[in-house]
Amino acid sequence: MKLYSARRAPSPRRTLMLLAEKDLQLDIIYLDLADGENLRPPFIQHNPMAKVPLLQLDDGSYLSEAAVINRYLDEYSGSPLLTGVDAASRARIDMWDRRVEFGFMLPVAHCFQHTSGYFADRMTPVPAYGEVAGQQARDFLAILQQQLQHHEYVAGDAFSVADITAVCALDFARVVKIKAGEEHPAIHAWYQRMQQRPSYSVEY
Amino acid sequence: MKLYSARRAPSPRRTLMLLAEKDLQLDIIYLDLADGENLRPPFIQHNPMAKVPLLQLDDGSYLSEAAVINRYLDEYSGSPLLTGVDAASRARIDMWDRRVEFGFMLPVAHCFQHTSGYFADRMTPVPAYGEVAGQQARDFLAILQQQLQHHEYVAGDAFSVADITAVCALDFARVVKIKAGEEHPAIHAWYQRMQQRPSYSVEY
Repeated sequence: MKLYSARRAPSPRRTLMLLAEKDLQLDIIYLDLADGENLRPPFIQHNPMAKVPLLQLDDGSYLSEAAVINRYLDEYSGSPLLTGVDAASRARIDMWDRRVEFGFMLPVAHCFQHTSGYFADRMTPVPAYGEVAGQQARDFLAILQQQLQHHEYVAGDAFSVADITAVCALDFARVVKIKAGEEHPAIHAWYQRMQQRPSYSVEY
Repeated sequence: MKLYSARRAPSPRRTLMLLAEKDLQLDIIYLDLADGENLRPPFIQHNPMAKVPLLQLDDGSYLSEAAVINRYLDEYSGSPLLTGVDAASRARIDMWDRRVEFGFMLPVAHCFQHTSGYFADRMTPVPAYGEVAGQQARDFLAILQQQLQHHEYVAGDAFSVADITAVCALDFARVVKIKAGEEHPAIHAWYQRMQQRPSYSVEY
């Protein structure tokens, strides 16, 4: 298997952290997103969504979407499973993974893209919407605080891919100056635990 | 189990179609979204994301997110599995389900919310962004056309939850006048096949 990634990008980092957690080694190819390498052939032929990470399987087929790749690699490599061990835990972990994605990571990405104009060569930034998305991301922190006040990890009592997604999203959010505040002590405590895991320091 | 849904809403329809496909019956409670019933207790205590569908399990816990609920109900009810039969097919189906969600359903929802002002009591519509999101949704139709030109179903050669998501998103897209055109013959042919399935006509 071969992984297509990019430097300093939050979504591929989710897969790099999973590889570190599961002690898996893969060939990694880094794309130059600023140069638009993801927007042209051959990459675009393998992932029409033009996004990294992208995983090439041994049969030559491709999987896109960090959550999909992480679940596949997690099942492939076995215990300890970070995407759940039965239908109920898989559902709970995926639910929180998606809450973090839709409620925080995506709004942060929209805030960044629409207020910074970073990808203005390939999209139309609307700064007023960027501000709305940023506020939506800030509002989500109250939901995360509430959850972490009652649970050690994002999806409950065990470390999971939802923690990986949340850490990657929170670090990414610093580029738009969104971060946990004094009203989010449980997020701070959890974040410190995350930083102590070797996977947190994986190069990306 | 008990399902919280809403009338004429595209995401809960995904679960109602899955129930029809799998011949499952559940108690269904319809919320009044226009009245904001999803924004206040008791609903908001069960799903802080304030979204339907929401599934209450027999142990009293709750699952949110249509994709999560559908996978859970699919595994729970067994064959024929609409979320895949092995790691590879589960990954391919989930990849396409997410491509349709992020690349089409979400931009359509943003286009609707930001151009119509329908939820202006609970968000700040930015019409210029609504137009951008609409164009993004239109662009996705080329990706769907390309896939359906080579495959009978959205995720490949078997009907899956990705077809359900795509049908619900396409029907929803009509509210913002986005639809498949003459340049998308494979989408039209697939859509006709979808309309012939009894699940397409399930009341929502």
